[in-house]
Amino acid sequence: MDHPDIARIIEGVEGALGVPRKIAGEVRAADIAQALGELDESHRLLVFSLLGDPKAADVLAAADERVQESLLEALPAERLTALLSQMDPDDAADVLQSAPEEDRPRIVAGLDEETRREVSLLDAYDPESAGGIMTTDVPTCRDGDTLGRVIEQLGDVEQPEALTAIYVVDAAGTLLGLVDLRALLVSDRDALVRDVMDTDVISAHVDDDQEEVARLVDRYDLASVPVVDAARRLKGVITVDDVIDVLGEEASEDMLRLAGTGAVHPTGQPLVERLLARAPWLSVTLVGSFSAGLVLEFIEQRWFPHALEVQSSFKALLYFIPLIGGMAGNVGSQSSTIMVRGFATGEVDPKRPMRVLKGELLLGLVIGVLAGLIVGVAAALVHPERPWLGLVVGTALPAAIGVAALAGTLVPFACAAVGIDPAYASGPFLQTLNDLSAYVIYFTVAIGLMDGLQLH
Amino acid sequence: MDHPDIARIIEGVEGALGVPRKIAGEVRAADIAQALGELDESHRLLVFSLLGDPKAADVLAAADERVQESLLEALPAERLTALLSQMDPDDAADVLQSAPEEDRPRIVAGLDEETRREVSLLDAYDPESAGGIMTTDVPTCRDGDTLGRVIEQLGDVEQPEALTAIYVVDAAGTLLGLVDLRALLVSDRDALVRDVMDTDVISAHVDDDQEEVARLVDRYDLASVPVVDAARRLKGVITVDDVIDVLGEEASEDMLRLAGTGAVHPTGQPLVERLLARAPWLSVTLVGSFSAGLVLEFIEQRWFPHALEVQSSFKALLYFIPLIGGMAGNVGSQSSTIMVRGFATGEVDPKRPMRVLKGELLLGLVIGVLAGLIVGVAAALVHPERPWLGLVVGTALPAAIGVAALAGTLVPFACAAVGIDPAYASGPFLQTLNDLSAYVIYFTVAIGLMDGLQLH
Repeated sequence: MDHPDIARIIEGVEGALGVPRKIAGEVRAADIAQALGELDESHRLLVFSLLGDPKAADVLAAADERVQESLLEALPAERLTALLSQMDPDDAADVLQSAPEEDRPRIVAGLDEETRREVSLLDAYDPESAGGIMTTDVPTCRDGDTLGRVIEQLGDVEQPEALTAIYVVDAAGTLLGLVDLRALLVSDRDALVRDVMDTDVISAHVDDDQEEVARLVDRYDLASVPVVDAARRLKGVITVDDVIDVLGEEASEDMLRLAGTGAVHPTGQPLVERLLARAPWLSVTLVGSFSAGLVLEFIEQRWFPHALEVQSSFKALLYFIPLIGGMAGNVGSQSSTIMVRGFATGEVDPKRPMRVLKGELLLGLVIGVLAGLIVGVAAALVHPERPWLGLVVGTALPAAIGVAALAGTLVPFACAAVGIDPAYASGPFLQTLNDLSAYVIYFTVAIGLMDGLQLH
Repeated sequence: MDHPDIARIIEGVEGALGVPRKIAGEVRAADIAQALGELDESHRLLVFSLLGDPKAADVLAAADERVQESLLEALPAERLTALLSQMDPDDAADVLQSAPEEDRPRIVAGLDEETRREVSLLDAYDPESAGGIMTTDVPTCRDGDTLGRVIEQLGDVEQPEALTAIYVVDAAGTLLGLVDLRALLVSDRDALVRDVMDTDVISAHVDDDQEEVARLVDRYDLASVPVVDAARRLKGVITVDDVIDVLGEEASEDMLRLAGTGAVHPTGQPLVERLLARAPWLSVTLVGSFSAGLVLEFIEQRWFPHALEVQSSFKALLYFIPLIGGMAGNVGSQSSTIMVRGFATGEVDPKRPMRVLKGELLLGLVIGVLAGLIVGVAAALVHPERPWLGLVVGTALPAAIGVAALAGTLVPFACAAVGIDPAYASGPFLQTLNDLSAYVIYFTVAIGLMDGLQLH
């Protein structure tokens, strides 16, 4: 296509891209990564393609998993290989985890030998272990080196940015101690490492859980933790920025799991994934609270046989109360927990409720309709003498759950807006509110339907 | 008391204390601080008194608030002044917060002038702001200094341990940039600061919320954040170890508040404080779920006037179902959230349930008895025609809540023992279990009491 017009088009595009490309060069990698998460797929790729190296590598490493996955799918393997080669090995190994399983061997094959060796080494460890989060780029020296020699080497090799110490090892790689940068700076350059090194080093084992490492760092105020194998050979180092990520992830996981939803980036995922993340725990609530109704009915029939009129429709509706309250309460708590945690991690902007409201409401309604279908059929089976009961419960359930999702999403925003801690108000207060409104909605829908359709 | 026997006693005691004193000198401050938290008051003071300086100051700074408070109460003001003088100003200001309000002026008065000035400066900021958590011990230099001169100064002054950079300021103290330790090490000592400094510095404002600072550090992987005032004058620095503490605290607060309890160190506090931390949110549940019962009764009377026999005791018991389920569920969730968070922070040992079980169970029973009294009286007032109702509900409530506290405490330990994430199982699963068991307990107690006392 050696046509003069095409060349002019390309020239024009290149000229037009000059300014955005310059801006992209000046913005921090973490900010670009965050912004990419908010763009749609095509704009995301466009902005990413504007980035020069090594900025593109930094952005890819800083992006969250979802953004990494979408970029990895779109980038050609050679480009990816080039980007991975520019990262710290631990970041490269992490990014590689986001690549489609079938593409990985091809990407890895393209890496230079050292990076390939380091990445596959890191890949061998459990990603939630010390070995899985450490970097293998560790600056080391021998205990017989002079400080001057150590400093010289520092200038040559690229070091992890958060580096605060040089580790001292023997010929077999066994960890002997560390020299912190300040000691290096203020001591005589002719002094030997063994005279200034600190031998009382707190280290982690490659198989330690990442949470244990985080606790070590927290407890002893460490800036980095050397990671050793069973023979105390130095394998890598975990810097404090990785530990902060671990602490955030673990807190998010615990909080969301306590609310019965399993995803760590819940607002950014597609609807189906979010539904699947909540489904197992909603099923527990569904089955449990349905059973609670059966237990109540059993108690009534066994001990209070004459309390309720056999043909009363109130009686039939009554035993779904634990279910209505349980499901509405559960969905509402999930929404509010996701908001409270999202505010804390910065994933959700407390000033922009509309960004997440539609998704949460839609998810609430889908859950409500699914639960309504299941319970509607179950109600018809348990009470064959009242065929209308399934319809009533199945209609009231989506309404009650939808309102709970709405309240669960909006109450945290409202609290943040008026300066009340959303976590306080989203706990028992919201749960009680959802219980009350669920009962009222349930009976209102039930009575309305029964009157309208002449069912009794 | 210049008696030879007394002198011999003292000599003997001193001799006997030699070995423990030596051991205490070798154990890390953070470990001693943790151990002090597990000792009773008298042993705590004994161990603390064995510590030499500056270990005692490090231990006091590392101890949690409750331990600090008990030590501060017991230590004479002069000793305290001596200890505070050995700490970083931010730690000294923190510890001072734990001293009884009336003692603070006397302690502060004893400090040397510089420490006093720094501590009172820090005291002026909101403790949860950047100013409140920063240290004022900031290493600074001018942009016209040579690197050699900067390094020389580094050797003289004591620096915060987590230091990774020297900040560059002008004559007015305005922040111009930073020189990281690695740049200092590898650059020529005759070079000027302005030639190697990084001017693209991310800083926080003194009034920024500590959570915002933590997000900055997390997002940009910072090792420390300089804190400036409105005129961009450097006021202090926040190191990453302080940020880790903030992240942990904020996650704990959010998680416990979502479960409706307000204390950050819930298992270590005395029973009354823990009760008070939960009381506001339990009251919300109590009032809300009691109201839910009234709403159900209203719905029944308005739309289903003939559904229930007027004199039925089942009807009377029925409307307390939301209350029984709500209170048992709430107390159970609080216990399980405290355990899950306690496992994550290391505050609760997942292998030693007995350490916390007694306290949680006792607290559950106290809450149950108080709630039972309140609801019992309310039930008697709402249903004057059934004077026995208050007795039945008031007796069933402590039983149901006690069982929920037991399950809420033990289920997380059981999960941890068999390798299931306690956060998963402690959410909807436990809540459903507590609902079911609460209904069964409630009706069992009610029927038993009514049969035994011939009430109907």
